Amino acid sequence: MTDDLLRRVTGPSDLHQFSELELTLLADEIRALILGCVSEVGGHLAASLGAVELTVALHSVLHSPRDKIIWDVGHQCYAHKIVTGRRDCFAGIRQYGGISGFPCRAESEHDIVGTGHASTSIGYGLGLAEAARLAGEQEGTVVCVIGDGALTGGVAFEALNNIGQMRTPVVVVLNDNQMSIRPNIGALQLYLNRLRLDPALTRLREDIERGVARIPAIGERAYALGKDFKESMKALIIPGMLFEELGFAYLGVVDGHDIRALREAIRQAVDTPRPVLVHVKTVKGKGYEPAEECPDKFHGTGPFHLSNGDSKTAAKGTSYTDAFGDALVRLAERDERVVAITAAMTQGTGLDRFEERFPDRLYDVGIAEEHAVVFAAGLALGGLRPVVAVYSTFLQRAFDMLVQDVGLQKLPVVFAVDRAGLVGDDGPTHHGAFDLSYLRLIPNMTVMAPSSQVELQHMLCTALSLDGPAAIRYPRGMAAVSAPPAELETFELGRGRVLEEGHDVAFIGIGTGVRIAVEAAQKARARGLRPTVVDARFVKPLDTALLDRLASTHERLVTVEENVLAGGFGSAVLECVAGRGVEVIRFGLPDAFVPHGDRERLLADVGLTPDAVAATVCSRPVGLAHAR
Amino acid sequence: MTDDLLRRVTGPSDLHQFSELELTLLADEIRALILGCVSEVGGHLAASLGAVELTVALHSVLHSPRDKIIWDVGHQCYAHKIVTGRRDCFAGIRQYGGISGFPCRAESEHDIVGTGHASTSIGYGLGLAEAARLAGEQEGTVVCVIGDGALTGGVAFEALNNIGQMRTPVVVVLNDNQMSIRPNIGALQLYLNRLRLDPALTRLREDIERGVARIPAIGERAYALGKDFKESMKALIIPGMLFEELGFAYLGVVDGHDIRALREAIRQAVDTPRPVLVHVKTVKGKGYEPAEECPDKFHGTGPFHLSNGDSKTAAKGTSYTDAFGDALVRLAERDERVVAITAAMTQGTGLDRFEERFPDRLYDVGIAEEHAVVFAAGLALGGLRPVVAVYSTFLQRAFDMLVQDVGLQKLPVVFAVDRAGLVGDDGPTHHGAFDLSYLRLIPNMTVMAPSSQVELQHMLCTALSLDGPAAIRYPRGMAAVSAPPAELETFELGRGRVLEEGHDVAFIGIGTGVRIAVEAAQKARARGLRPTVVDARFVKPLDTALLDRLASTHERLVTVEENVLAGGFGSAVLECVAGRGVEVIRFGLPDAFVPHGDRERLLADVGLTPDAVAATVCSRPVGLAHAR
Repeated sequence: MTDDLLRRVTGPSDLHQFSELELTLLADEIRALILGCVSEVGGHLAASLGAVELTVALHSVLHSPRDKIIWDVGHQCYAHKIVTGRRDCFAGIRQYGGISGFPCRAESEHDIVGTGHASTSIGYGLGLAEAARLAGEQEGTVVCVIGDGALTGGVAFEALNNIGQMRTPVVVVLNDNQMSIRPNIGALQLYLNRLRLDPALTRLREDIERGVARIPAIGERAYALGKDFKESMKALIIPGMLFEELGFAYLGVVDGHDIRALREAIRQAVDTPRPVLVHVKTVKGKGYEPAEECPDKFHGTGPFHLSNGDSKTAAKGTSYTDAFGDALVRLAERDERVVAITAAMTQGTGLDRFEERFPDRLYDVGIAEEHAVVFAAGLALGGLRPVVAVYSTFLQRAFDMLVQDVGLQKLPVVFAVDRAGLVGDDGPTHHGAFDLSYLRLIPNMTVMAPSSQVELQHMLCTALSLDGPAAIRYPRGMAAVSAPPAELETFELGRGRVLEEGHDVAFIGIGTGVRIAVEAAQKARARGLRPTVVDARFVKPLDTALLDRLASTHERLVTVEENVLAGGFGSAVLECVAGRGVEVIRFGLPDAFVPHGDRERLLADVGLTPDAVAATVCSRPVGLAHAR
Repeated sequence: MTDDLLRRVTGPSDLHQFSELELTLLADEIRALILGCVSEVGGHLAASLGAVELTVALHSVLHSPRDKIIWDVGHQCYAHKIVTGRRDCFAGIRQYGGISGFPCRAESEHDIVGTGHASTSIGYGLGLAEAARLAGEQEGTVVCVIGDGALTGGVAFEALNNIGQMRTPVVVVLNDNQMSIRPNIGALQLYLNRLRLDPALTRLREDIERGVARIPAIGERAYALGKDFKESMKALIIPGMLFEELGFAYLGVVDGHDIRALREAIRQAVDTPRPVLVHVKTVKGKGYEPAEECPDKFHGTGPFHLSNGDSKTAAKGTSYTDAFGDALVRLAERDERVVAITAAMTQGTGLDRFEERFPDRLYDVGIAEEHAVVFAAGLALGGLRPVVAVYSTFLQRAFDMLVQDVGLQKLPVVFAVDRAGLVGDDGPTHHGAFDLSYLRLIPNMTVMAPSSQVELQHMLCTALSLDGPAAIRYPRGMAAVSAPPAELETFELGRGRVLEEGHDVAFIGIGTGVRIAVEAAQKARARGLRPTVVDARFVKPLDTALLDRLASTHERLVTVEENVLAGGFGSAVLECVAGRGVEVIRFGLPDAFVPHGDRERLLADVGLTPDAVAATVCSRPVGLAHAR
């Protein structure tokens, strides 16, 4: 594959010079570039492959950035990055110091806004369009490209509902690949299926739209279809009725890999002086057979062999995610009240084994974190023991439900909070930097963080034994070879574990902070100190008895956590020992959004390493707390 | 009005003995009781008056608690409380120690779950129905009663979407009173209007449903209606199409004040073995003329004269809410980029004057806090200066948007966070107890809290001068007579204000905590201390220079805030002065959900009074920090 056409593209306006045949060839070149780079460094492959022709068509018709394209979720934006001046740096995508895997305002004027969480594009689009209207701007179209998965998120519906009434001319392109990360679900999806799949309906619709003169014939044909009148009339008369009812003109279904058809539909949408929904059917992973066959495996992928799609990185044991999934199956085997809930993340959260074993007890509610938590609360009210497995950053979506529907109601819902701390390549939209702070402020909530996979398994057992809500937060990956414990234990609530008794300085770690604390203590020991080392296990309730004792017997406590310092674990310790006269030095994530890149590198940047902790602790004179 | 029938009702099963005529009379008695009590003590009147017949009809057909009725939002539940054993204690509703104004699990087995925030009933209902299914229970229907206002919340849509696919037989009763607190908005509302309002369509639908034989005639009549073919066919053929498309059987429109019609529809819904939506049209404030005429005034009301609806409590000056609204108008007059966003709370948040003055710059997005924040972010991206006015407890709904779409994008959106701290009668679902904690953990966010209405006005001016996001949190009510400042000032960022210089002890208040700090300091002075008193103004950025100085010159800092202690303002101070050897004593809300009741009484219960603060501070020997 050459890149003759691609080399002529320095910005999106260059696409206006190309013929439709050239645009088609350009799409092939872009696809080859994406495949080449992502197979080397990993990334969000399948969604971006599916959106190549759509991207080319959009930029060949629109004038970015005067026209504003908002990508929802942003990981379908690789082709967009390539045609908007980032071809040459594309190979460094998601690498430390390289370009982001999501749209990023700082990178390009063509990245209108950063979008790492789903379902926000339509609300942004409405805001931009209204701002332009108030400013009296005459030119510029706002286009929101949203997947059918993201469309199930409630905030997308809120925005549709708002636009439909305001009648602000915004173009919503529904990139319908029938998937979120796994095959998509929900009544809306069934509805889209009906729109997509029935060619008889499409033909009839075309007949109907030719004019009202044929109405009697329509009635007869509807009847002849043999369904009951109501059903057939419903589907027959107006495709996209649901969107039409919400105030949108509906255009579709458009073949999302036919550049000519796409361009025509986009032109038509831009010319429509009211809200339009363009329904585009795409194939996730398009053009790369392994990705078309297993789009979920290639949703987000590590480096792989281009020849066959096999991963380049051999599995090095099990991850925390695996350990959680395995323990959940064990616990569900002995307690039939245990059910699991995911928001379109069965595999990512390690629920695949559970789904295999207990298909009837696994609920995938789609990209709908708020509903996932309310639904779980309802299941708990009904006597079950629901476990919501969710990424830390996405659980933010359901914060109010954690407070109101779980905390206040004191319902025994367990939250398995995966991807806590820094996640690495996906960057600031995906780091789980805040959960310890936003979880521990909720009354009735138990908050734990394991220092190993085995601890995680015991904590899950512990959480399921409680009368009220509990959350366990643990990191991405961190593969290790560890045998599962013979018996799952129930930990004593709010009890930390002393790993080593010493004096002067107590290193208190939580979660991934424990390893750092242990290693920092070793370094401190090498410098002549006799440190105490603690695995706190619980952020809430805190082990106040242990902390009291440590405060009485040590001059300095050192806390280590992979969470923002504001309101985090270290703050909880400060709150506990305030007035005890012991100095507390806290290590954690800074009050800033940490960029993307290799996790170890990022941790070093923010000073969350054994060396950095030991250096700071040992360089300050002990007893500073008393120096005035 | 007698209460002969009502006195025979000790539980909902008693309603099964009544004739339909008696049920109608019972509804009148209930309405009279609600009016009598609420006119004395205040409460959510209009929604509850509108739901009286619906409540009677539901309980006369269903068998609660085997059948589960979930009220969304819970404040329409007064009649439900009265017929489920709480008639005699109803007069104490929302009073300290009395029954809650919302469903409350602790109060009654008939209160399935507490619902103080909108749009959650359907998700709860699905959870309960699924739990029953997994347990193999054969009996019992789950009924979710949701207002048309609450239906615009995204989480309600997420639940509809999930149920529609699972086909779990849940009954959703849409209590359509065309209002949230003010007239409802959104495309969905326009859609419901079409269903409700056109008698010609209703007649046609009835004709249609009689059989397919008439199809040709339908076509002609549709044409004759004079709308274009598509529009008329759409609305004509299938009422409730939108819900049908989402997998629900649609029953409606039912007159929500006709008990016979309601009972018939409920019976039919219960017998339907798949999800059903019963569309009930009610009148908010039904049966009390002043409330029917001004349903928003009587949404939540204080005590009033039953004879004419006039308030019993005379206005005693302006509230913080008024002060905010006035300042916003002033600021908008001099900067045309200022726009305001509300989620169905124009009046409650004090935006009514702004709406009058700048109707084109006020956006009411309906009950949709997530969208409100994303939309505001979009407006800010487009160059405007949006101000989102929202209650503290409801802003929790948009926490992820605060982090991802405002904080990470560093967009200049201002949050006017009303009802912060304890709100009083509405209780734990409405207290704004957490915002300082969940706001200050967000990088790039400025967080302020004013100690007076004038300070609030300056802070709004300050917030609008910043390049990034800012939040100002202030309490409900607190009427005061204060002249607006001649000029609105821009405060120096992160600078507190020393009200009094002293030594030994520094009382540092934030927001409503300043008054408590000032008065506690007076009491301390009376006991011979020479306290320093500070109005912190900023929670983020903190005035670290001032805190450094205070830590060097005082042995004890005392922080006072109306926010949970976990991760709040006091914790921020602790984080700042950790290692400085100064003792910090923090006063704030406890790690518990505070019940409802008179605000001053609640503050006393949690120890947040000048007396309590002074007593604690003065009783502990200063210098404890150094005693080991």
